[in-house]
Amino acid sequence: MAKLITPRSEDYSQWYNDLVYRAGLADQSAVRGCMVIKPHGFALWENMRDILDKMFKDTGHVNAYFPLFVPKSLFEAEEKNAEGFAKECAVVTHYRLKTDPTRPGKLIADPEAKLEEELVVRPTSEAIIWNTYRDWIHSYRDLPILINQWANVVRWEMRTRPFLRTAEFLWQEGHTAHATKAEAMEEALKMHEVYTRFAEDYMAMPVIKGAKSENERFAGADDTFTIEAMMQDGKALQAGTSHYLGQNFAIAFGVKYLTDQNKEEYVYATSWGVSTRLIGALVMTHSDDDGLVLPPKLAPLQVIIVPIPKPTPEIKAVADKLIIELKSKGIRVQYDQDEKNRPGFKFAEYELKGVPVRIGIGARDLEQRVAEVARRDTKEKQSLPIEGLADAVEQLLQDIQSNLFNRALQLRSQNTHSVDNWEEFVDIMENRPGFVYAHWDGSIETELAIKERTKATIRCIPLDSKEEPGLCIFSGKPSNKRVLFAKAY
Amino acid sequence: MAKLITPRSEDYSQWYNDLVYRAGLADQSAVRGCMVIKPHGFALWENMRDILDKMFKDTGHVNAYFPLFVPKSLFEAEEKNAEGFAKECAVVTHYRLKTDPTRPGKLIADPEAKLEEELVVRPTSEAIIWNTYRDWIHSYRDLPILINQWANVVRWEMRTRPFLRTAEFLWQEGHTAHATKAEAMEEALKMHEVYTRFAEDYMAMPVIKGAKSENERFAGADDTFTIEAMMQDGKALQAGTSHYLGQNFAIAFGVKYLTDQNKEEYVYATSWGVSTRLIGALVMTHSDDDGLVLPPKLAPLQVIIVPIPKPTPEIKAVADKLIIELKSKGIRVQYDQDEKNRPGFKFAEYELKGVPVRIGIGARDLEQRVAEVARRDTKEKQSLPIEGLADAVEQLLQDIQSNLFNRALQLRSQNTHSVDNWEEFVDIMENRPGFVYAHWDGSIETELAIKERTKATIRCIPLDSKEEPGLCIFSGKPSNKRVLFAKAY
Repeated sequence: MAKLITPRSEDYSQWYNDLVYRAGLADQSAVRGCMVIKPHGFALWENMRDILDKMFKDTGHVNAYFPLFVPKSLFEAEEKNAEGFAKECAVVTHYRLKTDPTRPGKLIADPEAKLEEELVVRPTSEAIIWNTYRDWIHSYRDLPILINQWANVVRWEMRTRPFLRTAEFLWQEGHTAHATKAEAMEEALKMHEVYTRFAEDYMAMPVIKGAKSENERFAGADDTFTIEAMMQDGKALQAGTSHYLGQNFAIAFGVKYLTDQNKEEYVYATSWGVSTRLIGALVMTHSDDDGLVLPPKLAPLQVIIVPIPKPTPEIKAVADKLIIELKSKGIRVQYDQDEKNRPGFKFAEYELKGVPVRIGIGARDLEQRVAEVARRDTKEKQSLPIEGLADAVEQLLQDIQSNLFNRALQLRSQNTHSVDNWEEFVDIMENRPGFVYAHWDGSIETELAIKERTKATIRCIPLDSKEEPGLCIFSGKPSNKRVLFAKAY
Repeated sequence: MAKLITPRSEDYSQWYNDLVYRAGLADQSAVRGCMVIKPHGFALWENMRDILDKMFKDTGHVNAYFPLFVPKSLFEAEEKNAEGFAKECAVVTHYRLKTDPTRPGKLIADPEAKLEEELVVRPTSEAIIWNTYRDWIHSYRDLPILINQWANVVRWEMRTRPFLRTAEFLWQEGHTAHATKAEAMEEALKMHEVYTRFAEDYMAMPVIKGAKSENERFAGADDTFTIEAMMQDGKALQAGTSHYLGQNFAIAFGVKYLTDQNKEEYVYATSWGVSTRLIGALVMTHSDDDGLVLPPKLAPLQVIIVPIPKPTPEIKAVADKLIIELKSKGIRVQYDQDEKNRPGFKFAEYELKGVPVRIGIGARDLEQRVAEVARRDTKEKQSLPIEGLADAVEQLLQDIQSNLFNRALQLRSQNTHSVDNWEEFVDIMENRPGFVYAHWDGSIETELAIKERTKATIRCIPLDSKEEPGLCIFSGKPSNKRVLFAKAY
């Protein structure tokens, strides 16, 4: 079954698409650029969402919900933001359909139900939210506002790929309001750190933390902080961004507050978001030619127990006891009762779906009071005593979680270079893509020229990069620190 | 503070609006007919959603996500469904904005980015989902499909009210596919029962279970099952519906399966949904002139501890211990540390927000090892020993939950009538609205005539109504059972 997935070595991009569809994460839809998130993909998203939601609440945020539509005049208000998103906006122009007078049974947008003002389907919600915050904020006592929303947004992309780039996607967007620049900056950095912890501790995906160059910033932000992960093909994937928005939206929407000195001031803002794109990142970080490899902390099902060759009352009795023990440890486990398919078929299916641990129990195993335990990440199998198996499985899940992180970290180290020579830079980007730390003169012209020649972009200016005098890899002009270049998704 | 709410006796409708805004449940937005769900309202929705989600999963359902947009040609496919929703559809016609050449800084929908086929913003998702199910269903082994989705939908309503009727709202919609009529009907009735249990056991809102008349059915359904609740003004509110869709969508979208006899058959369907409208129902069922009254099982905060007149280390020590005990019982509790506002102000604020139990602790109370415990539903206060207080509070929360249900049930009994006389029917609907059980001849003409004259509609044909010969309240024609009439939201 898993053979229907193109191997990575043959075509990485096709491997990804095959895997997403074959493993039941997503399906194509009748709407251009929109996907259906299937139950297995959605269960993964639910786990990610619930963990992130708790992290947001633990850092003082609450959830709310703002409208899907943004009136065009509000959308225009913050000019850079409007300019940045105008080219990919779905626009609602009518509020009614009527029967087509010339074709019975067919409908047309009713010309008499044309909206006076068009509505933009939100590509992001700063405009509608800051227009609302104006009514909520009067004095310093109304600040800070620490709100997040889970929502769908639409960005009309011309080239789409499941999870990585779709016209509609699901995400969370935090929108906070603060009295001072320092407090807003602290918030933006705090959420940047929350995303880092989520990526590394739950997704087992190491990331580089940094600031975006001016050219790569969010439209309307004064600073964008990003986490950048390396996929198995050496390309970078931007996995989450947190923006310090300064007073740009407060000025555009007239959001002022009275300080405790009774002085009027504009409010400072942040916004931050991660999306269903993270599912794509997860797939491309850990999975292999046989299917998904999921970190145990996020896997919808962590342990599957398969009777060999088929269910018997004796095997079920042992499985039931084991399930009780595993569940009491908070482990998500199931027993496969199906009698129609053979173990080999089932093994391939659970490998495809990325279940981290598979426990096979057969009649002969029972005699010896052992079970065969297989881990999905390394495909290693071992025979373990049934006595104490729950503890061993708990430990194994932790080992798998660590191993996935370490494996990804190792891959990143092997494909990260510090480069001072343009030919080498070009060679790497062309022949063995990876992360490249190189000097840059700080100009947009150079940044764009490098992108045009190599498709590499500045992924970030790493927060921990040290001052180090050098010469720009492209222009030869002086530079005082290295930045991170890569080709990116 | 709470005085800013119009009393119910003066203007019930204004009371509702005042309360929704003043209690921080929702706010108006810049988009016609769309509301902002504020943090307190959203916390309530999160609790409702999480409980319902668990009930759906416990009955074998999984979540997925389908696109926001429905291509017009798919939307048209099931004719009754299309006809039912066409008049309230938001229509996307363009996928890009561009700078208005005549007005710098302003944007217009780019005429060159007109969609070949318009996209309807989903008012409900049968069309997009059944178009997808066609690819997922081939044989009886692919059935049943038991999928739910949590999503936003848009129905362009002309007269809107927060939660009760808004252009965009949040809901869940279950969409299931079955091999037989019996199985689909069983599913529709099962979810009808799930909604009943949620309304009565969690919302403390008694409901009448029944089937809709043909005229009131969901567009595209063969049968619609509803739960109908009585609001404090005697009007009915439809709180959830579950539809048996027969083979209508399977035929419209060509969804067939091979039976185990290798015969081709159309698939049977159900759909079922509840929405943020339930928040409106909750408010109108229990709240009073001082603010929200929330059933403890759904209240975001169940217990508030207020130091009197202000925080001291001694009070905090007692509160901390109490909080640990309450939290270990799974009770949501907070201690009010604010020093700026006086207890009277705080009491009014927590009453407005609907916190079920308030515990006041003062210096003199501490000497006597007692605390003042106030319940929100009856406003009764009692002095209780601090020793054993957590147990007493746990019991009190259960009492409040039961009391709210019983109070609502009593109100419904008092305002429910069995009527056999047209003058009395008209008098009730005009002067003291409530539920009226009356005979109906079964014709749409009579149903519409009654509606035109009294604004009363058939809320449902109760599932438990007994055969009883009688004469139609309006036409005098023979009838064999009573149906439920009421004015409705």
